[in-house]
Amino acid sequence: MNAELIAVGTELLLGSTVNSDAAMLSQELSALGIGVYHHTVVGDNPQRLREAIDLAKTRADLIITTGGLGPTYDDLTKTVVAEAFGKQLVFDPESADIIRNYFAQFHRPMTENNLQQAYLPEGCIIFKNDFGTAPACAFEADGTHVIMLPGPPRECMGVFRTKGIPYLATLTDGVIHSRSLRIYGVGESALEMQLRPLMQSLDNPTLAPYAKESEVELRITAKAGTVEAAQAMIAPVEAQVREILGDKIYGTDVADLQSVVVQALKERGKTVSTAESCTGGLVANMITDVAGASAVFSGGFVTYSNQAKTDLLGVPAAMVEEHSAVSAPVAQAMAEGARQRMHSDFALAVTGVAGPDSDERGNPVGLIFVALASAEETQIKKLEFASSRQRVRRMAAMTALDLLRKKLAEMD
Amino acid sequence: MNAELIAVGTELLLGSTVNSDAAMLSQELSALGIGVYHHTVVGDNPQRLREAIDLAKTRADLIITTGGLGPTYDDLTKTVVAEAFGKQLVFDPESADIIRNYFAQFHRPMTENNLQQAYLPEGCIIFKNDFGTAPACAFEADGTHVIMLPGPPRECMGVFRTKGIPYLATLTDGVIHSRSLRIYGVGESALEMQLRPLMQSLDNPTLAPYAKESEVELRITAKAGTVEAAQAMIAPVEAQVREILGDKIYGTDVADLQSVVVQALKERGKTVSTAESCTGGLVANMITDVAGASAVFSGGFVTYSNQAKTDLLGVPAAMVEEHSAVSAPVAQAMAEGARQRMHSDFALAVTGVAGPDSDERGNPVGLIFVALASAEETQIKKLEFASSRQRVRRMAAMTALDLLRKKLAEMD
Repeated sequence: MNAELIAVGTELLLGSTVNSDAAMLSQELSALGIGVYHHTVVGDNPQRLREAIDLAKTRADLIITTGGLGPTYDDLTKTVVAEAFGKQLVFDPESADIIRNYFAQFHRPMTENNLQQAYLPEGCIIFKNDFGTAPACAFEADGTHVIMLPGPPRECMGVFRTKGIPYLATLTDGVIHSRSLRIYGVGESALEMQLRPLMQSLDNPTLAPYAKESEVELRITAKAGTVEAAQAMIAPVEAQVREILGDKIYGTDVADLQSVVVQALKERGKTVSTAESCTGGLVANMITDVAGASAVFSGGFVTYSNQAKTDLLGVPAAMVEEHSAVSAPVAQAMAEGARQRMHSDFALAVTGVAGPDSDERGNPVGLIFVALASAEETQIKKLEFASSRQRVRRMAAMTALDLLRKKLAEMD
Repeated sequence: MNAELIAVGTELLLGSTVNSDAAMLSQELSALGIGVYHHTVVGDNPQRLREAIDLAKTRADLIITTGGLGPTYDDLTKTVVAEAFGKQLVFDPESADIIRNYFAQFHRPMTENNLQQAYLPEGCIIFKNDFGTAPACAFEADGTHVIMLPGPPRECMGVFRTKGIPYLATLTDGVIHSRSLRIYGVGESALEMQLRPLMQSLDNPTLAPYAKESEVELRITAKAGTVEAAQAMIAPVEAQVREILGDKIYGTDVADLQSVVVQALKERGKTVSTAESCTGGLVANMITDVAGASAVFSGGFVTYSNQAKTDLLGVPAAMVEEHSAVSAPVAQAMAEGARQRMHSDFALAVTGVAGPDSDERGNPVGLIFVALASAEETQIKKLEFASSRQRVRRMAAMTALDLLRKKLAEMD
């Protein structure tokens, strides 16, 4: 089975939006064993969209459109796709109710144009959208399978993962099953060098690295008759990977590093607090992004100024003067100050220079100290990243969380 | 003149690379008055690339390819493009010297396949690549202009800006100029309802809304002979939009809401601090995402537990007991406590239920109180968003920043 992705949206042709849906869907399709041969982007233009669909029908078994399902007059994907396959759009009262409820839930008035989203091609399978208002759908006609997904990346991927993948699984025989190992602290190319002999020796299952924001995902994918058979094929490969990467693997089939840390704290009945300078609340924000974090996180400090480090965390002003705010002693004093004031088992502290400029003491961009205080000791880690402000902040926060993850793992 | 962008690379179809070249080139082309009607992506496959070029020849005045100019066997763009236009590839000794020097400069041995990059279509204009080894080029044939650019984004944009734009400037008349109004606090569909009569009455300039994460961008775009003439056409439309939307417009041609707030604080010599419960540091993190935020942001508190609200911000335990932590009095006490402890001009506080579950006092998911404390008064805003945890947190943080933006605007 081969697929073509057609993205619809003038904002893509103006360059104000990057077609990240195409990349995300391509990864997922490739993991399902479906080859993607073309990505096409057209604007909110019915004629050019129609031509793109007519062309895709001649060369693809599966067409996935993204975008143009919304309530406004330039949202024309369903109309044009239905026409191209000789189908009528019919009103789906259930989708209309869901849209009405969505607005009611927000206590927002619903404008009538929103109900346009409830018109769907006759005979299609409706994919309820739990991530927004526009329902997605799939149908088969003229020997081609068609899936229409919303454009906003969160909705596109949410609907594809929860509804699109199960739909596609019914079209292929056997199953494709993946296991995702999440890795922090080693780059994609270095990882590939380490794993290349293993990767090249494999055919089914396959082993492939995917670079994510400041980390790498390693996916082991097997094709087999049943999920159990696929799992049995994956297990020995995973064992070999673990042999090579050891504790660089922070989790398997998990959402992210912060979820792993929150879960590990919960299991051990421990709490953490934070004291952040250059990360400006990012560590606290990542922890509290995890539902249920309140059981393990009592609070944190964002001490951006030196005054705040002294007033709120008790870092001696003389220490800041002597060593500068970006130093190991200050990181240590911040972590210990936060732990004491928040009465938590652990405290994480980050101080550094996120950029774009070096600080007034001449510390370079990307110099970071991360500290982890516990009852017994305070560990300190010095980092040097030459990168953008956003990336430096992100890497510093990830390093802090990873330090706590390893500490908790050692407790077992 | 209209353009089609053809990206060549299997890594794009596997989703391991996002086609950011297409977005960047589209922005540049649109600024030059060249409409982009199609983006196409094909893999390192000569037949499918040839088909894409043959199709583009029938519908575009300008074809820009990205990728496939490098030294390895799968770099086939020049060969296939030259064939499609009946041209020979000829060896360019000057390009070969540049490639040899490039390797010498980095003290790296050059493998022979690198010289493949010095073969270019006969009669083309060579774009020397100051950002890598593969030279780019342009030619005109069969009434179509063709530009071939390298794939890596830094090389692609570097060569396009320094060589491609001057080349295209000789081919076109007129410019396209846009102005971007950023709006918080009104949804895309509601916005369109309000603006539809105006949008429909316009032809040049055009007016179009784009939904972004929890906000809307409204873009006014004019085609004219010069940038000044386009600006003069945009101004009266902007005035009409401002009449309708008023202070819902938080900025024009700006990066984001937090940049506007940081800039406004800087201009007025004012500082802000934060006290966050359900947003868990997101407001602080958004503010400190702006380079130079340290001039206006001294620090913040993440008081996730009730104990932390009392210990760190001085919220009376009896008040929490009586009204619950998610209440107007607690939001007010948090903001006032933070302002006093951080010695800042303003303080923002957020308390609420981010979900996924209602809190132990039965407050529903999405119930939020935002407070803004200043020397004269404390404003409190109650919000109800029923949405995902991430979205509730994001909307609460945006609302807090927007409250401060409006307060600062009132000071003028």
